[in-house]
Amino acid sequence: MLNIGLIGAGTVGGGVVKLLHSQAPFFRNVLGLPVHLHTIADKAVNRFPQLPVGNANCTDDADTVINDPDIRIVIELVGGTTFAKDIILRSLAKGKRVITANKALIAEHGPEIFQTAERHGVSVYFEAAVGGGMPVIKTIREALVGNEIHSVKTIINGTCNYILTQMSLQGLSFSNALAQAQAKGYAEADPSLDVGGGDSGHKVAIMASLIYGGYVPFNKISIEGISTLGHEDIAFARDLGYCIKLLGIMKRNPVNDACDVRVHPAMLRTDHILASVNDVFNAVLLEGDAVGQILLYGRGAGELPTASAVMSDIVDAARDIIGATPRRIPMSYYQTGNELPLKPIASIISRYYLRLGLVDVPGVLGTIAAIFGKHGISIASVMQRENLSQECVPVIFLTHTASEQNVRLALAEIAQLDMVKCAARVIRIEE
Amino acid sequence: MLNIGLIGAGTVGGGVVKLLHSQAPFFRNVLGLPVHLHTIADKAVNRFPQLPVGNANCTDDADTVINDPDIRIVIELVGGTTFAKDIILRSLAKGKRVITANKALIAEHGPEIFQTAERHGVSVYFEAAVGGGMPVIKTIREALVGNEIHSVKTIINGTCNYILTQMSLQGLSFSNALAQAQAKGYAEADPSLDVGGGDSGHKVAIMASLIYGGYVPFNKISIEGISTLGHEDIAFARDLGYCIKLLGIMKRNPVNDACDVRVHPAMLRTDHILASVNDVFNAVLLEGDAVGQILLYGRGAGELPTASAVMSDIVDAARDIIGATPRRIPMSYYQTGNELPLKPIASIISRYYLRLGLVDVPGVLGTIAAIFGKHGISIASVMQRENLSQECVPVIFLTHTASEQNVRLALAEIAQLDMVKCAARVIRIEE
Repeated sequence: MLNIGLIGAGTVGGGVVKLLHSQAPFFRNVLGLPVHLHTIADKAVNRFPQLPVGNANCTDDADTVINDPDIRIVIELVGGTTFAKDIILRSLAKGKRVITANKALIAEHGPEIFQTAERHGVSVYFEAAVGGGMPVIKTIREALVGNEIHSVKTIINGTCNYILTQMSLQGLSFSNALAQAQAKGYAEADPSLDVGGGDSGHKVAIMASLIYGGYVPFNKISIEGISTLGHEDIAFARDLGYCIKLLGIMKRNPVNDACDVRVHPAMLRTDHILASVNDVFNAVLLEGDAVGQILLYGRGAGELPTASAVMSDIVDAARDIIGATPRRIPMSYYQTGNELPLKPIASIISRYYLRLGLVDVPGVLGTIAAIFGKHGISIASVMQRENLSQECVPVIFLTHTASEQNVRLALAEIAQLDMVKCAARVIRIEE
Repeated sequence: MLNIGLIGAGTVGGGVVKLLHSQAPFFRNVLGLPVHLHTIADKAVNRFPQLPVGNANCTDDADTVINDPDIRIVIELVGGTTFAKDIILRSLAKGKRVITANKALIAEHGPEIFQTAERHGVSVYFEAAVGGGMPVIKTIREALVGNEIHSVKTIINGTCNYILTQMSLQGLSFSNALAQAQAKGYAEADPSLDVGGGDSGHKVAIMASLIYGGYVPFNKISIEGISTLGHEDIAFARDLGYCIKLLGIMKRNPVNDACDVRVHPAMLRTDHILASVNDVFNAVLLEGDAVGQILLYGRGAGELPTASAVMSDIVDAARDIIGATPRRIPMSYYQTGNELPLKPIASIISRYYLRLGLVDVPGVLGTIAAIFGKHGISIASVMQRENLSQECVPVIFLTHTASEQNVRLALAEIAQLDMVKCAARVIRIEE
């Protein structure tokens, strides 16, 4: 028997109990994997009666799982980065395989966790940490193992994508769209980890580490959220043939250059394949030297989609135990001593959407254009909208490729002008 | 050393040689997998000087690979179903792992191949057989292992999708679009396996077998190709808000019902996620009970995309050898004794696009509508176009859900009418 201990029977944990209930006979009888849900631990013991726990031992004490030598696989679904980390490190130290959906923990403490696993000759499985039921980790580590992955562009936070979709389709303000997301259960009461970009950043840090074969620290990634996006920008973007998405972006070219890893709102032409990813859906667009473009699309969160990824990890872990392949996929490169240099956001090259609020006086466009020219920024198109208010005319510039550094210098110079009345709005354009 | 023998150094085989040349050091040094391209066999020995063969033994005799006890992994890339089958069966009998991209062979002789592999305690790896570099097989067998997959809809032949895209965007006839595909190298001189739907059928037979956990025989799948599609249907479809794609469709609901597995042109609303899959791109839309909808999108063919899938299989095979997991993913269910019942195409339920060619006389629509009503077919919309010719007015009906059987009966009755001048055109509509 491959006994499983589950710690945390909340949303995703409850989904795992349900799917194991229905799938374990298939795993045992068809796949030859004798998995058994042995113990479930959760402080909220009132959750147990709601779930098909079968003959599993139900307890409020995680130590019951960690200390039981009969349990070979521990599933950590409590969340957070303190108690969860303790559970995982202690389970690994006892030679147990660990499965987790905890993106914050892997992104912020991955090296310690993976080194502990390597030291004890076991693996950590974390397919559910990125992209819910989409096989993001498996695709990067296994399916595309023969590729150099040049770039990844990803919509990886369903809350933000839902909010942006509502702002775009219904013309809602950010705060109204957020309220709608909260009403539908797509956003937390405290939405800051999602709308601030931190959750996307956690997932991007993990993906970038896997793709580049080193350690990409979460706290060094440039992250901008969506809470300052105006719905007028979304409307203007649409008039220009673009939409706005919160993108996670990973690029490295040439291979030995610093990694360009960032999260920020970005404009995409409406015919871009990511532009049609709406509502709570997620997508990951990978570009490999051999495979070309590959897109994964699906629900990136939720009880059963995330539990589906945990089930995939259960089967992988069971196969590794049966096959005596404890380190089937080595993670030894994922350590602090192997930290990779990251490209500062100021040194990136991009196209830009720049919205300036100008006084409507003769000569203003010429003055602005001269400043752009001085900083080597070439303008692809200009659109002047009708007055939004008495004193401030929105003027939108789309640039050709320019360096972020030069754009910042030009905007700083422009901000000094008397004819400038509102702060400039900057959105990077992705091809 | 895990010695690899490659048989067939054509397009995909050449790509494998190139990728192994660049990636083998990574496999050896980072992944700990000591793979080595030991021998390459191809009758066309003039291919060898074009490739980075390194210190591999190059021969025109496949037996050199099959009979060498030092070779643990055989990659079969010769194609066809006779010599390739012989190579694979003999290699398996000698206890070698076999990797193949041969969709026709798996679809038509899978049971014999998998049973031979099981008998000798080794695995056959065939990620490259379906969807080029997209991880279709891995996603079905590993990532979604915790799901019941309710349905799959797939655009899985790049040649057909390119032709349909050109017919749609440029208004070309089928034969002109085919000629363009041939000029670009996207279609063979004899395109019948692609445009007739057989290639899609091979891939669908494999996918359906994996999804339903039994054997779906290729020769029992209902297959229609695209060569009889008129560009006017594509234009009419567009006017109605639809596009036409060659779809592979797998459905089973409820689970114990016969499997509905088929390949035919189908209309999709232009906002359907598969509608934006154009040119030579492929996509697989899977729907699982836990994960919901998952889409894979990418290039389904070509030298390096297909070689990328072979690399993924090489790494899996190497890990299985190192980890002594010869039957990590059992295939024992894939045998003739476990053949699954298939739903006859006549018994499906679908929505339909029906184009009739009618004489423009009073009362004609009423007569037709009465026949539909008699057979329980409810009409969702009707569109009468201007005359294409003197004698025949095209009239298009979109039906609500109806049984194929009833549609056929109604059309047979309609065909008897004097006012009907051209054969009816039937296209199923997918949601």
